[in-house]
Amino acid sequence: MDANDLFDSSDSVRSGKPLAHLKTARFPGPIKLSTGGVLPELTIAYETYGELSSQKDNAVLIFHALSGDSHVAAHSADDDPGWWDLLVGPGKYVDTNRYFVICANVLGGCRGTTGPDSINPETGKEYGVDFPPITVADIVDAQRMLVESLGIERLLAIIGGSLGGLMALDWGTRYPDGVAGIAAVATGARMTTQALAFDIVARNAIMSDPNFNGGEYYGKDVGPSTGLAIARMLGHITYLSQESMNRKFNANRNVGRKIDTSFETKFSVGSYLAYQGGKFVERFDANSYLALTLALDAFDLGSDRDQLVAALRRSMCRWLFVSFSSDWLFPPFQTRELVDAALASDKRVSCCDIESYGGHDSFLLENEAPIYGGLIAAFLHNLSLDWSPDDAERRTALTESYGKGADPIRNRVDYDRILALIPPKTKILDLGCGRGDLLAQLKARGHERLVGVEAQEELVLKCVEKGLDVLQLDLNDGLKSFSDHQFDFVVLSKTLQTIKNVEIVLDEMLRVGTRAIVSFPNLGFRDRRAQLNAGRAPQTHQGREWYNSNDVRYLTISDFEEFCQKKGYKIFKEVALDSKTGDVVEEDKEIAGDVFIVVIGH
Amino acid sequence: MDANDLFDSSDSVRSGKPLAHLKTARFPGPIKLSTGGVLPELTIAYETYGELSSQKDNAVLIFHALSGDSHVAAHSADDDPGWWDLLVGPGKYVDTNRYFVICANVLGGCRGTTGPDSINPETGKEYGVDFPPITVADIVDAQRMLVESLGIERLLAIIGGSLGGLMALDWGTRYPDGVAGIAAVATGARMTTQALAFDIVARNAIMSDPNFNGGEYYGKDVGPSTGLAIARMLGHITYLSQESMNRKFNANRNVGRKIDTSFETKFSVGSYLAYQGGKFVERFDANSYLALTLALDAFDLGSDRDQLVAALRRSMCRWLFVSFSSDWLFPPFQTRELVDAALASDKRVSCCDIESYGGHDSFLLENEAPIYGGLIAAFLHNLSLDWSPDDAERRTALTESYGKGADPIRNRVDYDRILALIPPKTKILDLGCGRGDLLAQLKARGHERLVGVEAQEELVLKCVEKGLDVLQLDLNDGLKSFSDHQFDFVVLSKTLQTIKNVEIVLDEMLRVGTRAIVSFPNLGFRDRRAQLNAGRAPQTHQGREWYNSNDVRYLTISDFEEFCQKKGYKIFKEVALDSKTGDVVEEDKEIAGDVFIVVIGH
Repeated sequence: MDANDLFDSSDSVRSGKPLAHLKTARFPGPIKLSTGGVLPELTIAYETYGELSSQKDNAVLIFHALSGDSHVAAHSADDDPGWWDLLVGPGKYVDTNRYFVICANVLGGCRGTTGPDSINPETGKEYGVDFPPITVADIVDAQRMLVESLGIERLLAIIGGSLGGLMALDWGTRYPDGVAGIAAVATGARMTTQALAFDIVARNAIMSDPNFNGGEYYGKDVGPSTGLAIARMLGHITYLSQESMNRKFNANRNVGRKIDTSFETKFSVGSYLAYQGGKFVERFDANSYLALTLALDAFDLGSDRDQLVAALRRSMCRWLFVSFSSDWLFPPFQTRELVDAALASDKRVSCCDIESYGGHDSFLLENEAPIYGGLIAAFLHNLSLDWSPDDAERRTALTESYGKGADPIRNRVDYDRILALIPPKTKILDLGCGRGDLLAQLKARGHERLVGVEAQEELVLKCVEKGLDVLQLDLNDGLKSFSDHQFDFVVLSKTLQTIKNVEIVLDEMLRVGTRAIVSFPNLGFRDRRAQLNAGRAPQTHQGREWYNSNDVRYLTISDFEEFCQKKGYKIFKEVALDSKTGDVVEEDKEIAGDVFIVVIGH
Repeated sequence: MDANDLFDSSDSVRSGKPLAHLKTARFPGPIKLSTGGVLPELTIAYETYGELSSQKDNAVLIFHALSGDSHVAAHSADDDPGWWDLLVGPGKYVDTNRYFVICANVLGGCRGTTGPDSINPETGKEYGVDFPPITVADIVDAQRMLVESLGIERLLAIIGGSLGGLMALDWGTRYPDGVAGIAAVATGARMTTQALAFDIVARNAIMSDPNFNGGEYYGKDVGPSTGLAIARMLGHITYLSQESMNRKFNANRNVGRKIDTSFETKFSVGSYLAYQGGKFVERFDANSYLALTLALDAFDLGSDRDQLVAALRRSMCRWLFVSFSSDWLFPPFQTRELVDAALASDKRVSCCDIESYGGHDSFLLENEAPIYGGLIAAFLHNLSLDWSPDDAERRTALTESYGKGADPIRNRVDYDRILALIPPKTKILDLGCGRGDLLAQLKARGHERLVGVEAQEELVLKCVEKGLDVLQLDLNDGLKSFSDHQFDFVVLSKTLQTIKNVEIVLDEMLRVGTRAIVSFPNLGFRDRRAQLNAGRAPQTHQGREWYNSNDVRYLTISDFEEFCQKKGYKIFKEVALDSKTGDVVEEDKEIAGDVFIVVIGH
């Protein structure tokens, strides 16, 4: 690898010329802020992509992260690259042939929207220290003024990562009827203490730079470029991961690149940080950095579960939450807290924690785009379909424009029997839902509250493509995400035998559901008895041997019955199946049925 | 929790008065450094605890971490607390009634040993920028001069964490005959790129402080206290963990304590960092911080496996490696790399990755002390026993002074049979070795190369207490730590049935061993057939039901034989046992034997 390659980064490489497609919206003051401050006027710099439909039902608002701006994507081949070209553009995951995409620089920023380096019309000079403190709510309110000024009453979707994710959460919980769906990526209800601590150190570096001069540095020869560069270096570390930094810098660890800087360049990572820090001060304003990180750090959707539930309860949109396993700035557990809060008030929500090595920046990287981009594309498509549910012609047209045939629904011999056990309109949780085949059939039957749980991210994507709400969770951790009696039926079809923590999972099923439907292979089936009598371990799946089966539990119907008795579960129904024929077995069930389906409850 | 409690830290709370027991050793120059620099003289500040034995066989050298010093423990009840009082003292894990403990401030430090703030005898002023660059090797060489000056030719042990761990690695690989055992805690072969990056940002903060003045600030009114405080804040974050910070600060997140500081105190964690930063500049010198972190960052025992193996091959001591699951400054994978390198050249090594939430500082915290302290205590005791192996009287006296009866050796019905299959003097690896009962019996039989693998840290401790070498690893990850054909026999006794990745583990066993000895419960045993014929899943462990058994694999001897045939393993011996009587079953083995022991190979 050439040492120069190390200097590529997720920062867009800009030509430096003004953005040709930048638009501005001006709002006369006074603009009252949540902090008590007042702005004499508000200018918002924004860009749009695609066309707003005549029904105004295709507007997608994208929120950028801390150091981003309105240029989410290039407008043409010769335009400067955008920060999310990977996702946004004609035919891409956020398809600008289909959606009207809006992206605006945030309030308090320094890329065209009113911020500390803007001219205060009342003084004719930059605001500087007179720029009032702002909160995430103020930042969101500014975006909302823009959206309203474009004549859009309800957004199809908001997509935001990092700071943009906090903004999305704020919008969804304060202006619930203004948006049909929110995709919140790599974010959380508030900063972790560790993330807060890094921001504090960064601000201390800026404010203790003698050239900061209490924030009054505009028009002077030098500003707090040293402090701001140090802040950026620190930020950069938190955007990457242990592993991504090793991958990037290990090969040339001791080869610092010669660059024009007063910072240390001994190690390759040092010259990289010095370079990134130096580049950042050319395009970012220190007072903006302070204002925005203070807003970020003060944001707090709730410090405990009750507060989070209360916040999410106010929302009316569908939610898609995406986190990344290697993100330690907004670690996956924070997304999980949000998902759990949304579930507690029966919101429609899907989530996926994507296995990745890229850290927080994963949402800007190509590796993981097929999953998170695919999830966002499917989510947007489903939101469109839901917008006017009775307009069949429109739905057909949309489905065609989506371009992907939905994953076909496959039946399995036990599904028909399970479907027969489920009364209409009941609420169903399907554990280990796979690609969503059972849930899709229930959806077609008109069940409204359907939730799937699946561990594999590719299968989670298949479910979302089917328009289902699905959560990527490991069943062995229990069902902490769900409240007591939240479902009528909890289904565990052909999954019991793969679970290590059987008692936890079954107890949990009967906590969150009134009834549980469990299907499993019967070890006592005649062919299996014959196998053991011939000296071989019984097989529960053809072609799966003792050493490579996914199964870790083996049981007969009697074993399960005794277990239920011991646990105090009542058995309401037992169905034995011959899975070769699909027939229900009525006689000698314990010997003649190779699959059992059991309905249990308290 | 009172907000004031938040300000406790792992920093020792010192009275500020001079340390009453501080000793100094002076060495005339010129002292030549590895970097080409020369010191006109060397002063080492150190403390000792306990008495050096007449045979000089009980000296334990402890290396402190970056900001530590010689005061590892209080010398008496009214003495200032030491930084490792938890571990070191009369009757403690490092028992100063038994061991002669030495701890010295490092070269380049600022707590009595020659460093940048010492007076250069050639100029009569502080060294400042004239202090030559130093490496970890120079720091170690200074400690070695001290040890030699105390008349000690060979140390019983070196114990070092963090920077102290790097120093221990350096000593062990450069002066192999100078130490019988090394306990390297929370350390690695070199800094990760991420850890390096934090140090670089910290140094940039110091060096860009205008009061740093190129390092010439001694005798001036102000030094680079702002930059140094920022460096310390940053360091502090890396010593804690995501979780420990949340636990410490979440309850009073927004309650900043009022302290006299120019730094931000908005959040509780902010005022804590400001307080820690401020306290640090009172006791630490910025030039020392630069010199020591540069030495730390440049240390590199090897950038790939071959280099690491070459380095560890030079060592002659026994090794104990301890890491902590939540340590992200020196993450556990770094310790694993060192363990693997030591194993590759058949060094005697034990390791344990301790489940913890405290981050890098875990090795200074009480929670985990029973395990890591217990491991160190047992390790030291075993080193003593090994020192003069033929002196039976001495061994008895030592064992009595250890105070703990060693964990008794328990036999199991299959052990006698396995022992009978193992020829004398062969090299044995025992996978899933539990509390080391089989290995202890082999040790008593005189086998010299015995290694155990066990997942549970409490059992790892039991093994180390028996004087065994044991590695805490998860078998399902394979046996990457071991080289091809490193052992004569690899034993997997009653563990096969608990392993998910059967093929990987068995393939690996026959890669690292010439023969594998595998014992497992036979599913085809007559009682188990009867159970299934009666409609119940066969039990392989009494009292363990299908839903709570540790087993995840079920097999008969025929299954295993067929598997061996498929894999091309040869079966050299099969023994069927009746585990009720302990007798070998000769007839109808497949039906009459409930446990099988099989010897396989290529």
